[in-house]
Amino acid sequence: MTTEKRLPFASDYQQGAHPRILERLAAANMEANAGYGMDAHSEHARKFICDVCSAPQAEVHFLVGGTQANAVTIDALLAPWQGVVAASSGHVSVHEAGAIEACGHKVIQLPETDGKLGAADVDALATSWEQDENRDHMVMPGLVYISQPTEYGTLYSLRELIALRAACDKHDMRLYVDGARLAYALAAPANDVTLADLARLADAFYIGGTKCGALLGEAVVFPKPETCPHFFTLVKRRGALLAKGMVAGIQFETLFSDGLYQQIGQRAVEQARRIARAFDDAGCELMYPQQTNQVFVALDEKQYVHLSERVEMSFWEHLADGRTAVRLATSWATIDEDVDELVALLRD
Amino acid sequence: MTTEKRLPFASDYQQGAHPRILERLAAANMEANAGYGMDAHSEHARKFICDVCSAPQAEVHFLVGGTQANAVTIDALLAPWQGVVAASSGHVSVHEAGAIEACGHKVIQLPETDGKLGAADVDALATSWEQDENRDHMVMPGLVYISQPTEYGTLYSLRELIALRAACDKHDMRLYVDGARLAYALAAPANDVTLADLARLADAFYIGGTKCGALLGEAVVFPKPETCPHFFTLVKRRGALLAKGMVAGIQFETLFSDGLYQQIGQRAVEQARRIARAFDDAGCELMYPQQTNQVFVALDEKQYVHLSERVEMSFWEHLADGRTAVRLATSWATIDEDVDELVALLRD
Amino acid sequence: MTTEKRLPFASDYQQGAHPRILERLAAANMEANAGYGMDAHSEHARKFICDVCSAPQAEVHFLVGGTQANAVTIDALLAPWQGVVAASSGHVSVHEAGAIEACGHKVIQLPETDGKLGAADVDALATSWEQDENRDHMVMPGLVYISQPTEYGTLYSLRELIALRAACDKHDMRLYVDGARLAYALAAPANDVTLADLARLADAFYIGGTKCGALLGEAVVFPKPETCPHFFTLVKRRGALLAKGMVAGIQFETLFSDGLYQQIGQRAVEQARRIARAFDDAGCELMYPQQTNQVFVALDEKQYVHLSERVEMSFWEHLADGRTAVRLATSWATIDEDVDELVALLRD
Amino acid sequence: MTTEKRLPFASDYQQGAHPRILERLAAANMEANAGYGMDAHSEHARKFICDVCSAPQAEVHFLVGGTQANAVTIDALLAPWQGVVAASSGHVSVHEAGAIEACGHKVIQLPETDGKLGAADVDALATSWEQDENRDHMVMPGLVYISQPTEYGTLYSLRELIALRAACDKHDMRLYVDGARLAYALAAPANDVTLADLARLADAFYIGGTKCGALLGEAVVFPKPETCPHFFTLVKRRGALLAKGMVAGIQFETLFSDGLYQQIGQRAVEQARRIARAFDDAGCELMYPQQTNQVFVALDEKQYVHLSERVEMSFWEHLADGRTAVRLATSWATIDEDVDELVALLRD
Repeated sequence: MTTEKRLPFASDYQQGAHPRILERLAAANMEANAGYGMDAHSEHARKFICDVCSAPQAEVHFLVGGTQANAVTIDALLAPWQGVVAASSGHVSVHEAGAIEACGHKVIQLPETDGKLGAADVDALATSWEQDENRDHMVMPGLVYISQPTEYGTLYSLRELIALRAACDKHDMRLYVDGARLAYALAAPANDVTLADLARLADAFYIGGTKCGALLGEAVVFPKPETCPHFFTLVKRRGALLAKGMVAGIQFETLFSDGLYQQIGQRAVEQARRIARAFDDAGCELMYPQQTNQVFVALDEKQYVHLSERVEMSFWEHLADGRTAVRLATSWATIDEDVDELVALLRD
Repeated sequence: MTTEKRLPFASDYQQGAHPRILERLAAANMEANAGYGMDAHSEHARKFICDVCSAPQAEVHFLVGGTQANAVTIDALLAPWQGVVAASSGHVSVHEAGAIEACGHKVIQLPETDGKLGAADVDALATSWEQDENRDHMVMPGLVYISQPTEYGTLYSLRELIALRAACDKHDMRLYVDGARLAYALAAPANDVTLADLARLADAFYIGGTKCGALLGEAVVFPKPETCPHFFTLVKRRGALLAKGMVAGIQFETLFSDGLYQQIGQRAVEQARRIARAFDDAGCELMYPQQTNQVFVALDEKQYVHLSERVEMSFWEHLADGRTAVRLATSWATIDEDVDELVALLRD
Repeated sequence: MTTEKRLPFASDYQQGAHPRILERLAAANMEANAGYGMDAHSEHARKFICDVCSAPQAEVHFLVGGTQANAVTIDALLAPWQGVVAASSGHVSVHEAGAIEACGHKVIQLPETDGKLGAADVDALATSWEQDENRDHMVMPGLVYISQPTEYGTLYSLRELIALRAACDKHDMRLYVDGARLAYALAAPANDVTLADLARLADAFYIGGTKCGALLGEAVVFPKPETCPHFFTLVKRRGALLAKGMVAGIQFETLFSDGLYQQIGQRAVEQARRIARAFDDAGCELMYPQQTNQVFVALDEKQYVHLSERVEMSFWEHLADGRTAVRLATSWATIDEDVDELVALLRD
Repeated sequence: MTTEKRLPFASDYQQGAHPRILERLAAANMEANAGYGMDAHSEHARKFICDVCSAPQAEVHFLVGGTQANAVTIDALLAPWQGVVAASSGHVSVHEAGAIEACGHKVIQLPETDGKLGAADVDALATSWEQDENRDHMVMPGLVYISQPTEYGTLYSLRELIALRAACDKHDMRLYVDGARLAYALAAPANDVTLADLARLADAFYIGGTKCGALLGEAVVFPKPETCPHFFTLVKRRGALLAKGMVAGIQFETLFSDGLYQQIGQRAVEQARRIARAFDDAGCELMYPQQTNQVFVALDEKQYVHLSERVEMSFWEHLADGRTAVRLATSWATIDEDVDELVALLRD
């Protein structure tokens, strides 16, 4: 099912890893490393991440994938009587096959704007629970889940994040940030939220590897130590512990050496900007503001059929007016020649 | 915590991957592959595994690690009112942090001999449940879990496996085989159980990658199709689905090309045989018959202290007589020079 | 916290049991009955229920309460990859403290009209799931949950129920009916859905005892045998099995003797009708059509304060226009004198 | 399946409730009580229990049955990475259909003597876990479960209980006592453990109602407040919350008025003593010391067949020597005439 001929913009996890990661994996291949993340590479990677987050006390755990990182961490952060508040478009709401519920927790969905949760909505929900006489018969909202960037590629501003944190503080809730594509947020021109901001404002977040240049791996960060006691055992209990922890450790060690994570983000965001502009110039409507590495665009049938012949895109949804929404994504692996070709195609 | 100086026999997951795997990962790195195991490499790997198992209809899924493969698969095979029968030394009984119970199932422990479950014990347990007037208040034994090789490196013979299958058939139970170190079983001189036998006798088993030459990955095999409907979604629900499925696919494609899996096993087992013999010659008691890539040996304090200075081993347990049991493991990464040096050490 | 002086319309579970039930419990008190529902009374009750449902093969299990009946039964009906579709106002959606999620399943909420799910919405949801390319990453809608009467006291018509059944059949879904207050539906003048209809159209439903005259107890009915194998053990596993099963058995034996269940319903519905009319005559807006034993009415602050002094009602919600919605409920225990007094009060 | 003719010694939950309980239920039947345990009767009952436990700050919750009380409370007391330690004969180990595992926790079984756990065994287990290098991959023993009296009708002495508490303190574990038949322990001549001792030594325990004179109900006691935050919601989440909480409240109010709980225990224990002596005089071997209301006796086939014709007993197990072990139980409902007749039978 590989699509060798068409321009590869279907997703940001089609190719392997950034070449520098493969080099490092090969270089370390014959080392005898301790297992389960106790190796020196994982130790270095944790140190680098603490540094870049300005959170020297942070605890960092390397998990394998995003759904896993979300389910294990959110379950660890919630009490059994609590649920997670998320946008109706949130990954945990729709595209994780019920992984949160499989851990026993409800996902309480709120409406979204460009994929984002509003602090006022969170506040209203929590206030409503607190004032309900039947609240002890209801799931307590215990944690707010957001994605940075969102599933629609949009960004929370620092001001929005601070407002969400305030809502959480007001109602004694936790704040968790899904950073599956965090590299592309950090590198976005419009972004004003740093890793240090995330570490200061969130109770936990993960720095995405899989979609940002690694073969696999997500770095779960607890800025304050002892946020989740026995997290290592909880990871094991959910089948999420890598025996060869150095495989993730080496990758994050590489991503956070020499500014690689930032470079990967910058290139892909710039390429996405070119693509978005080309669609716009071609008169195609962008569904959401293009801010990171994803471009969502509405195509009429002729455009859709025509483009699909030459470009691998992700079908997104059928629109009420008959058009089709599609997603294009760039990544570390996107080459400028492919973007050039796409732009040229759109010009015609 | 890497231990660069001592001879590395602590485990079979200290090093990266067999070089041929790294080569293949590098070669395929820039391909645009479909995600979630829908890529051509995974497809090839599945085909190769079906072939070597003589099970053309088998369904093969690539998961990341052993505890994960066990929990997801066993949960999928059991009804909610059923539990899993395992040796008291079984990995699911002791070293998975309660992953089976986290899925809602009891592990019913039976005594073991050299790490093995006996068919008679299984039969007796199931019979006892069937005849108990209170059986509807008790967990029904629904599946038998064994490891090949066992946690002690020993082997089930084909005759023993057939007897277990018969016990399962008699009591309408499933048979599941944990093959974390299956390469070393398949290559053992004493072994008479082939992959085709496993496919014929087990309802499900997994072919270990992590401990047999891969960076990570276990191939879960359901010899009969539709054994577990919607297994893909169950994998996702447990956070066990690799986005870049080709990372596992390429590795198994490589392991099952050109007899690599067999070669890896053979070398390691031969090296373990040399080590076991050297211990035996040195008058050290082997705790279990050395059949695969692990050697369990009882050392008195002087021997233990002395050897530990030069050799990285796994502490196993304190014995009642004051001796210490340790484990040494070989793998694809073990070099003959290290074995030579260990043998020489033991000669002194 | 008992409120002895005010007129008791706060709920339909404030008093004990219909006197005939207490008599029967007393009469059978010294019998030596088998436990766990194996007694003759439970047997009779099951027989009576099968008869009144025109479902001679039905399996009937007596559980203790509504949330328990919902969670245990829905969990038994769903596969692990499936979720339950419910109105956003459904009891399982909001007022069961996450009991469904605690069993590992998502509640997929749909909008409601007067507390009811529409077949078209169910169809659209299931169709959307079926057509989604990512459906294997999403919870499959596996069962439709409705309440008869609804949480707002309204009724599904037979036509609506048939339409829901058709939507379920079209998409291979189960239909489950929560009958916590079923007596009041069956006795409603507007009702055209019989127990035989429920048995014909639903895969499972429960006949409420707790809110319909019993001390406790709900009769879960599976019209087709073997719908949920080993349900007895699943009930035990969820801590829902009554040791003295005859306590539930005797109550349902009584409720389904001599038309008691119907009588209880009729009286309470007629009393609710008088109350609703009195509110209407007094110019108070009914929030939903009064069809069964619950009356939902919007009161301005003066009315609310004034009435609250004399009448025990349930606060329902604050309305946007400043009014307060309250609920009044009648039951087997409501006496005509109290209704008279309330009507007189409203006349002033 | 009722057995009207034979002497009813099969169990202690065959009959309804102590007549005084039925009287009180009838007397309160028409009161308008608040739901969910917020009524005055439940309040009184809680007060009485705090008094008799000399634990004025204790939190008391009324649940429905024993398996439910065990599962909900133990789950609330354990962290997700912890398991419960129990005797291999413990109710949670064998006869609860996996209810503990359904909440995600392992039951770690230890050997028993006359149904009792030894403090030394608990200490050894916890020490072994603490000293195991792989402990983070293993379930942490977090709570000790015992039954008073045990499933074999035997008693922990105060000294044994203090030793268990010390072992728990040493290893930071909780102590939980299943008091399904606590009335019979408290009234046993050999008993030296009071309710105040339990409240002082256990983190939680339940006072059995179902098997001690009530229709249903178990009073879960947390001697220290805030032991389990949000326990009410956890009870609801597990479907264990009684809507008509007064049904349990009135029963415990009655049991703990005028010394009824003690009286019920005393009579039944005295009757069991007479039965045990009669078996002993007849040369039948008692399996365990008769200390409370249960008598376990080994019968040869002739005795078994003969007695079964006239006496309803519980089959317990087949013994290796061909004999059959049976259980006889007395309760509040046992009449002296039936004991006389049994004693006379055994004399022949």
